[in-house]
Amino acid sequence: MPWPREISLQGGNFSLTKSFKVNITGDPNSRIFIGATQFIRRLDGRTGLFLEQAHLTKINEVPEAELQINIIRNGEIKLKEDESYQLTVVSNKILINATTDLGALHGLETLLQLLQNSSASFYFPNVTISDSPRFIWRGLMIDAARHFQPVDVIKRNLDAMASMKMNVFHWHLADDQGWRIEMKNHPKLNELSTDGSYYTQEEIKNIVKYAAERGILVVPEIDVPGHASALLTAYPEIGSKLAADPAYTVKRNSGIYNSTLDPTNPKTYQLLGEIFDEVCPLFPGDYFHIGGDENNGKEWNANPQIQEFKTENKMSSNHDLQTYFNMQLIPMLKKHNKKLMGWEEIMTENMSKNAIIHAWRGTNEGQASGGSLAKAAKNGYQTVLSNGYYIDLMLSIDKHYLNDPIPSNSTLSSEEKVKILGGEAAMWSELVTPLNIDSRIWPRTAAIAERLWSEADITDLNSLHKRLKTISWRLEELGISHIRNKEVILRNISNNQSTAPINDLSNVCEPLKNYSRNGGGKKYRMHSPLTLFADACTADAYDAYDFDKAVMAYLENKSPENQIVVTDFFRKWIAMNGQLIDLSANAPLIQPLLPLSESLSELSQLLLLKIENKKIVQPTILTNLLEKCNSKKNADVELVVYNSLKKLSEMP
Amino acid sequence: MPWPREISLQGGNFSLTKSFKVNITGDPNSRIFIGATQFIRRLDGRTGLFLEQAHLTKINEVPEAELQINIIRNGEIKLKEDESYQLTVVSNKILINATTDLGALHGLETLLQLLQNSSASFYFPNVTISDSPRFIWRGLMIDAARHFQPVDVIKRNLDAMASMKMNVFHWHLADDQGWRIEMKNHPKLNELSTDGSYYTQEEIKNIVKYAAERGILVVPEIDVPGHASALLTAYPEIGSKLAADPAYTVKRNSGIYNSTLDPTNPKTYQLLGEIFDEVCPLFPGDYFHIGGDENNGKEWNANPQIQEFKTENKMSSNHDLQTYFNMQLIPMLKKHNKKLMGWEEIMTENMSKNAIIHAWRGTNEGQASGGSLAKAAKNGYQTVLSNGYYIDLMLSIDKHYLNDPIPSNSTLSSEEKVKILGGEAAMWSELVTPLNIDSRIWPRTAAIAERLWSEADITDLNSLHKRLKTISWRLEELGISHIRNKEVILRNISNNQSTAPINDLSNVCEPLKNYSRNGGGKKYRMHSPLTLFADACTADAYDAYDFDKAVMAYLENKSPENQIVVTDFFRKWIAMNGQLIDLSANAPLIQPLLPLSESLSELSQLLLLKIENKKIVQPTILTNLLEKCNSKKNADVELVVYNSLKKLSEMP
Repeated sequence: MPWPREISLQGGNFSLTKSFKVNITGDPNSRIFIGATQFIRRLDGRTGLFLEQAHLTKINEVPEAELQINIIRNGEIKLKEDESYQLTVVSNKILINATTDLGALHGLETLLQLLQNSSASFYFPNVTISDSPRFIWRGLMIDAARHFQPVDVIKRNLDAMASMKMNVFHWHLADDQGWRIEMKNHPKLNELSTDGSYYTQEEIKNIVKYAAERGILVVPEIDVPGHASALLTAYPEIGSKLAADPAYTVKRNSGIYNSTLDPTNPKTYQLLGEIFDEVCPLFPGDYFHIGGDENNGKEWNANPQIQEFKTENKMSSNHDLQTYFNMQLIPMLKKHNKKLMGWEEIMTENMSKNAIIHAWRGTNEGQASGGSLAKAAKNGYQTVLSNGYYIDLMLSIDKHYLNDPIPSNSTLSSEEKVKILGGEAAMWSELVTPLNIDSRIWPRTAAIAERLWSEADITDLNSLHKRLKTISWRLEELGISHIRNKEVILRNISNNQSTAPINDLSNVCEPLKNYSRNGGGKKYRMHSPLTLFADACTADAYDAYDFDKAVMAYLENKSPENQIVVTDFFRKWIAMNGQLIDLSANAPLIQPLLPLSESLSELSQLLLLKIENKKIVQPTILTNLLEKCNSKKNADVELVVYNSLKKLSEMP
Repeated sequence: MPWPREISLQGGNFSLTKSFKVNITGDPNSRIFIGATQFIRRLDGRTGLFLEQAHLTKINEVPEAELQINIIRNGEIKLKEDESYQLTVVSNKILINATTDLGALHGLETLLQLLQNSSASFYFPNVTISDSPRFIWRGLMIDAARHFQPVDVIKRNLDAMASMKMNVFHWHLADDQGWRIEMKNHPKLNELSTDGSYYTQEEIKNIVKYAAERGILVVPEIDVPGHASALLTAYPEIGSKLAADPAYTVKRNSGIYNSTLDPTNPKTYQLLGEIFDEVCPLFPGDYFHIGGDENNGKEWNANPQIQEFKTENKMSSNHDLQTYFNMQLIPMLKKHNKKLMGWEEIMTENMSKNAIIHAWRGTNEGQASGGSLAKAAKNGYQTVLSNGYYIDLMLSIDKHYLNDPIPSNSTLSSEEKVKILGGEAAMWSELVTPLNIDSRIWPRTAAIAERLWSEADITDLNSLHKRLKTISWRLEELGISHIRNKEVILRNISNNQSTAPINDLSNVCEPLKNYSRNGGGKKYRMHSPLTLFADACTADAYDAYDFDKAVMAYLENKSPENQIVVTDFFRKWIAMNGQLIDLSANAPLIQPLLPLSESLSELSQLLLLKIENKKIVQPTILTNLLEKCNSKKNADVELVVYNSLKKLSEMP
């Protein structure tokens, strides 16, 4: 995963032994030595073979090695670089051929995924693979402003991205809730605009280097002119608010705020120029994201001087004014060889066609899904899709997976299609900390990575779910903590008693979707606890998919075999409820789960009667219990087996 | 834990609600605001109360707060600082009074440990505590040279140390296997003396600051003149080897090497002076550890020039020569206001009495346990104990816990006793990576922390084991990964099948002790896999202690109740073996566990027959199986229920 362009399995295997070695030939960047050494370590960790090879440091160091990697030239960390590779496994030899070391790194990830085992040994199946990506922009955005995410969180996610052949890390570094970049020339931004958490410039350089070693381009974002409360807390003089309005403060809630830079003030551009002069050199890549989203215009409307400026300059709307603002930034960034990228609101009539449009709005925002992406391409802009890839909405992975940047019914011309660079999963951090962030990103982002790398016709959901289970587990090797940290949260809830019944419940519950967990941004402040049941739950609850399959099979054919799969679930949930009640005597955090667990248990008992004893259950009782199961008022989660239970309840 | 000096429980409780707040008065360092904010976050994470207070930033910000902390003065990060505190909980008020903010931080940790719960709410019991430490040096050493330990590993361990009221972090930064400090003036030490992993100076300063915020002094160690392979790989010109000998190289195995600095070469002192000039300013504390251990003298003996120097200077032994070397370092360190500390080998007749002697050798090294500590104190040296606290030996915590720096039978005078500053747990890193290191340090080090903080008569092992279970779990909140990462290793072994039976086996197995896992340092190189069964196992195997208690109870009284506790273990192990055999069909890493598991299962069956059916089992068969259970040849572990099984087998 992602599924390769061409794959052809042959008979036979390559057996792994402790003498297995890697050799590199050609003319690559030093990053392949780091990557190949890591490959060896990961292979050794999985197999326990005590592989003899320690560190790879030289070209053609072990000519007799079983795995030969040949690279024609040094790859560059930029879009449109050649990322293709060919991988051939035969019984006594493995070859990876690639134009660049970036392609070869992808080949090594594919090879690791090919590892198989018998009862006592490990092997690679003989195979021929030829592979290259469908889209050149395969990104993940992490918001480090709402909740700061320390260096180790970023690094482990870069490792995971590389394992899924992703190549763009978009780093959201400034928003209303914090400014996360050390500013040597403007220390006020660190003293006044954060709670003390930010990346030092050395850490940023270190992360950019770490990303480059994994073939990943880093695109920084400083969100302006809106989302600027943190910036304006340090520099209120460039804000648009009236002097009499309350002072700007760093925000501790979510939501859209009024705080907006003053586009009519020359000092605004002077400060932004100085900021770019300090920040741009930290990021060698070609792109700089200036945000530009959700400027609600309230401060501009209320400020007579700004209104006067609009009139004088014949601007008919705030959009025109924001375009004016955006256009001032282009030369500031060009000075550092950076292209401007922004969220789709920057796409106005007079906006430069060199800007890159980041499409994010869709049906949630009252627009056609994917509409702004197509519109940007038609308008001649290069564009990247995030609508449909907002993983913080806690929607099913199926939805993200089937969300194609160029759907089969697209009416774009082939020239327009080329403008669509790819897509980006977006991890906004209102409700994530280092403890639970990985469980929001992974394994879901692997499905988005496949959408962006693999051919458009790779859309089999059964295959996706099956492969995701393996990927999910293997991500642990890279330090991704989604599985292990769930247990930590459950132990806290159980007060260090048994976690099994809470785990059972978590496997049929999902956090409330579409931001309804944090209605209006009011419930959770940035310091609120994210150590609760909803944080242990994830989208695509583990048992819900299997239960629905079991129910569908049973409804189609009421065989004893199909029946028992369904009724085993009911027995599990009835027992679970009893255990939860017992545990709750010594665990206050279990109390909020009991209403859901009790409703599920009672409904399970009735459905057991109905199915096993053919007893007729009063429909109103069933409906009543079903509605209790459908409540979204408990513990910030919903019971996602509701629809399957409904089908069984309504069964004649 | 550690148990306070005086504690008096009163009737009644203080109930926690979301309006609970903290107020600080007096004249403290800013670290109490960080500490109190962290206290609030941890309390909120445990209780899910959505506590209203966000960040503490000012003196007397919330005069009406329920928790009042009063501090007389700013504490300094040095030995002999006042760390005492008084904590009083009454039904509507909590008071922490402390001379310094360091004492107040300890008080907050105690308060967190007092958190109790009913079925639906949380509270603190009314209590009066008066507390201060028995020893002023309560340390943990982490070796970051053998296996590099990244910043996040160090930080989470500093958090855990602070929670156990420990106050010295000894950081072993250079050894044969790597030089781990960024050297701006001597970049060769980074280019040639590591595999690329070292701390930047900024990271070091950041860690020292992080430690100081938690009341912890950082003592750096650069080990000289032995253990110097990494240093000499970059600067062979100051080594003692003959020109014809093989070149110095960074080592990839464990063990004692010959590589030793040349004490007769002026360049040696010039370079060390330059190194100290660069390294000392990173560490504001008063102590610098220069190692000094395990210089085997081979290079010195073989070098005619060095022998000549000894003769010329009337030195009768290599000890004299090393003392000469050590004495040259004292003024270099004094220039930076640092006192020299070293492992006990530096204690020779002519060594300065200002040096601090770190006692580490004991019965393993053919010496009386604790002998060198007493000798150092008698000789007038300040001294710190690590013998008996080597947590990498994988011995039972009981042994470490009862190892008192001043045992009750000590013959030292009270003046001599004062020379004993305290002790340090030592985590050597031959066999630990970020994945398994926490499981070697914790919860075991909590017992050592109690030994060093609490009164000498706090020695009840039953109480220790009971409290350690809670401490162990609560350490998870600080990011300590010993519980969660065990599951990661088990999933890798099981090939993502069920982990329950491997977990059952791991709960009666312990890694081979006293360095026998890595006989002669030959089996494990620094890049060998540490993802295997022995890495999932820990000292003090979870079930072994309980099983032994059950066996002892049964042997004393063969009641049906006592019998069933024992036989339940047997049934579990028999089932476990069957499950392991099933799983092994698809998990090569399970194969090495089967011999142990099968022996345990067979012996369990026989003992069941003996106990339940009163059947006479042939003693030779029992003995034979017992010996199989005692084998140390499987998977680098031993079955630690052996002694308990032996008692049952020998029972008439």
